[in-house]
Amino acid sequence: MNQENFIANNVVAGWHNQVKACHKLLSELSDDQLMKEIVPGKNRGIYLVGHLAAVHDRMIPLLGLGDHLFPAIHLIFLQSPDKAVENLPSIDELKNQLDQVNEKLNAHFATMNAAQWLEKHNSVSAEDFVKEPHRNKLSVLISRTNHLANHIGQLLLLR
Amino acid sequence: MNQENFIANNVVAGWHNQVKACHKLLSELSDDQLMKEIVPGKNRGIYLVGHLAAVHDRMIPLLGLGDHLFPAIHLIFLQSPDKAVENLPSIDELKNQLDQVNEKLNAHFATMNAAQWLEKHNSVSAEDFVKEPHRNKLSVLISRTNHLANHIGQLLLLR
Repeated sequence: MNQENFIANNVVAGWHNQVKACHKLLSELSDDQLMKEIVPGKNRGIYLVGHLAAVHDRMIPLLGLGDHLFPAIHLIFLQSPDKAVENLPSIDELKNQLDQVNEKLNAHFATMNAAQWLEKHNSVSAEDFVKEPHRNKLSVLISRTNHLANHIGQLLLLR
Repeated sequence: MNQENFIANNVVAGWHNQVKACHKLLSELSDDQLMKEIVPGKNRGIYLVGHLAAVHDRMIPLLGLGDHLFPAIHLIFLQSPDKAVENLPSIDELKNQLDQVNEKLNAHFATMNAAQWLEKHNSVSAEDFVKEPHRNKLSVLISRTNHLANHIGQLLLLR
């Protein structure tokens, strides 16, 4: 494997580590724990599960890998704060959607080489990308990995 | 810039983003906020500041960049849980130590190319590194970036 693909694989491994840590943590937290606000007045665990599913779902078109799988959850978990929407999907449904989205992303990631990771993502114009080539697919993966780690830190407080 | 150095720079940029976000957040939180437990019975903000300073301090020898700057805080914030040690350094002192450690790391990172990021770190033996070449300095940077994001997520709950 050449050096640039090896480095890209290192970054993808960092994503996988966080996805696995999140899956394990969510399998250990009870529904009662996930229905609680992490801190009084802040997000509940269930909201963060839906939020992660929606943010990762949005990565699919952002990275040019196809269409959203679950557009119905975007309004609830991206455009609305927690507790603004009644009648959320069940925790099991949201966990399952998060797993499905991650599986779809991971299937694509397994086929991507460094040159593909350095392509532009779909929220930057071709003109801007010429001037700002760091706005590539790899930067999306890095920022979403950190976003996931950020919310895992919060979910850990429910234990 | 060749492709492998460009990718390594993307990863370093992800680290810088988290370091900046942490610095900004710590400048916004009051000492009163940082003295609180994030969740009853869990770590206080001050402990996380000291913990990040100690973990990043340990990165210096781990990445072969020189000696620890602040070994005195390792016992308090790495080997002991929060509230086990009385008489902590002040919040200002810990914030300052975190800044100093990050500045030292960043000065080195600015000079490192992809080949250097792919060298072995100092917690893996030369024999193991032959079999597990992904245990390189870049993987340390990625995991510490995620560790930082994880604790930023928790500190955000103090606002």
